[in-house]
Amino acid sequence: MAEKNRTVKIGVVGLGGRGRGLIGTLAQMDDVVISAVCDIVDECIDEAIGRIREYKDYPVKRFNNYHDLLAEKDIEGVVIATSWNEHIEIAIASMEAGKYAAFEVGGANSIEECWDLVKTYEKTKVPCMMLENCCYGQYELAILNMIRHGLFGEIIHCAGGYHHDLRTLADALARNKQRSFHHLHRNAELYPTHEIGPISKYLNINRGNRFLTLTSTASKSRGLGIRAEEVFGKDNPYTQNYALGDIVTTVIKCAGGETITLTHDTSLPRPYSRGNAVHGTKGIWMEINKSVYFEDLSPNPHEWEPIENYLDKYNHPIWKEFLEDGVTGGHGGMDYLVLRAFIESIQNETITPIDVYESASWMAITCLSEQSISMGSMPVAFPDFTNGKWLTQRPVLEGKYSLDK
Amino acid sequence: MAEKNRTVKIGVVGLGGRGRGLIGTLAQMDDVVISAVCDIVDECIDEAIGRIREYKDYPVKRFNNYHDLLAEKDIEGVVIATSWNEHIEIAIASMEAGKYAAFEVGGANSIEECWDLVKTYEKTKVPCMMLENCCYGQYELAILNMIRHGLFGEIIHCAGGYHHDLRTLADALARNKQRSFHHLHRNAELYPTHEIGPISKYLNINRGNRFLTLTSTASKSRGLGIRAEEVFGKDNPYTQNYALGDIVTTVIKCAGGETITLTHDTSLPRPYSRGNAVHGTKGIWMEINKSVYFEDLSPNPHEWEPIENYLDKYNHPIWKEFLEDGVTGGHGGMDYLVLRAFIESIQNETITPIDVYESASWMAITCLSEQSISMGSMPVAFPDFTNGKWLTQRPVLEGKYSLDK
Repeated sequence: MAEKNRTVKIGVVGLGGRGRGLIGTLAQMDDVVISAVCDIVDECIDEAIGRIREYKDYPVKRFNNYHDLLAEKDIEGVVIATSWNEHIEIAIASMEAGKYAAFEVGGANSIEECWDLVKTYEKTKVPCMMLENCCYGQYELAILNMIRHGLFGEIIHCAGGYHHDLRTLADALARNKQRSFHHLHRNAELYPTHEIGPISKYLNINRGNRFLTLTSTASKSRGLGIRAEEVFGKDNPYTQNYALGDIVTTVIKCAGGETITLTHDTSLPRPYSRGNAVHGTKGIWMEINKSVYFEDLSPNPHEWEPIENYLDKYNHPIWKEFLEDGVTGGHGGMDYLVLRAFIESIQNETITPIDVYESASWMAITCLSEQSISMGSMPVAFPDFTNGKWLTQRPVLEGKYSLDK
Repeated sequence: MAEKNRTVKIGVVGLGGRGRGLIGTLAQMDDVVISAVCDIVDECIDEAIGRIREYKDYPVKRFNNYHDLLAEKDIEGVVIATSWNEHIEIAIASMEAGKYAAFEVGGANSIEECWDLVKTYEKTKVPCMMLENCCYGQYELAILNMIRHGLFGEIIHCAGGYHHDLRTLADALARNKQRSFHHLHRNAELYPTHEIGPISKYLNINRGNRFLTLTSTASKSRGLGIRAEEVFGKDNPYTQNYALGDIVTTVIKCAGGETITLTHDTSLPRPYSRGNAVHGTKGIWMEINKSVYFEDLSPNPHEWEPIENYLDKYNHPIWKEFLEDGVTGGHGGMDYLVLRAFIESIQNETITPIDVYESASWMAITCLSEQSISMGSMPVAFPDFTNGKWLTQRPVLEGKYSLDK
């Protein structure tokens, strides 16, 4: 929390629960001024400014149209927390206005919009970053650090899942229509990035490796329909009419020969988990039992030991410093770290730790999985959004927030 | 151990480690006479008879050719524990000789040999059973019982894996050529039945449900090649030349809309697990953390609780009786139970608890996954080995060893 660099002015677009949460973290930073906020709903603007006022009394401009916010000359970066469908459109407009763009997580609707994002970056050279906070989770960072130190040997397989009982959203259809529309009408891996973000860093995706193909298979859809019937009765239009299968399993094959299993699991009762797992030639990690086994290090052959045994030594430098300074911000500190990484990239005029190629590759999983499911789990090919640049060593972010060193 | 029914004479074909292990369990049963054994290696016959002699002194005939064993008129059942490739051939010959056939687990090489197995049963009406011991595992049985009692609601997704570090086999290539030949030359879900057996019972496969399609994806192959190089040096023919990917992920879609994920994982360091998991509209079970969560029963929302909390009440009747009698036999008692189920089916002249259609469907996964992997994870269709009989309620085994009641 000691960071104080040159002050940057930031705009925030999309002031629902998530946008206001990010504002609560940004408003505590003494080298950040949230000089403008934007939402189509005035009450959301009021609430967002109220959140800023808990910490700061600088002037905050209010807009209903994001183009007006982007016209503000002194804003250097834009944080986008609208509904999923608008992330790419606003990020593109932000880059075209010369402002660093950071957008919240979500999947893409088409491969073409991912290409548009990439091409806008290549035209403008303005950095663009998905705010994938789980890349900065304590365990995810520690495992990344252990991989870089060779504890797992050569990585062979990774897994992850969005295991999060979201059936309460069925209670809140009216309030949360945007996400529910996806659940109602799309059968896909709708929310891949919390898992694939960290795994992508583990596997050096788009830097010497890339996603080649995926298959996706959806179970029947029951959980959301049952909940909608409980809450709204038999005759509401949502009961039993969700397109989204309760469990969507996606298997990705990488150019380096690694495989990745992703599970979208938001419609059935269960404890929360991101299901992170790594299996290499020398060891294995599974988040679900918070355990590792390293052939050369673990005391007993073929016996799990707690990950805690390794955290003192292998907590990532980012997390070690963060612990010393005092963990703060939403989602166990991940929100603070990912926002700090974005802010300091602006301050230092560097690339961002998650770049436009990664953002596009991760978001593409959603529409590719939708294609695969709709064609009976046919394998579908990933585009190479780098157009071959993954084959050579592209520049990586230097400095403390790097996830590629 | 109290069972004593009419005495049946049994022949055992294939007297390697596994065959001798089964003999050790069968020889302790007072209503079973192992009247003949068969192997191409005389030393294996000697060892097998020695094992019988630890418990019994009845006459045991020795054969090098299984056709000679099948010519023994008073043998009513044949237990087959040869290498994988001979299971179906010998089971077919056994049925044709009018003898109940039970064969050890393994995968098929072709769909056609699965059909041959099924058609021989339909022609002879002699029951034929895969000895899938894991169907009688304590946890697998308890979960089956909890499913039948409705604790999970409607089942949506199941998972399982053969997570077993078998790299020691690379040390023993000369002794264990049969399995190693599969590892060397086939990239497939080579060993699906320990997982799919119990799951098949959970999902009523071939009784109102069936496997429709699968996709299979293999990672690169490293673990066995690295171990072979360590043991035999760089220049041996096996080093780096294994066809089998270290992690093979298979996703099955069922007619009832359920999905199943299977993982073959035998070439990398890790603790043993069968990775059993069940997810339904009311609850979830995961073997890896030995935990369940039931929305209507668990004390804390979205919090795991140990499966042990439910075993007193929901241990399967088979297992409860077994515990009272004193667990015995290999693999924590599973071997005893599966063999008892086979023996008592002969004694009672009933069908077996695992039938020829299930055996064929489970074994088919191996060659279907091989096809899918070789075609870039293309979905491939399961044959309907029942030719439509899965649509109606086929007869199920009555009595204590039933897995379908």
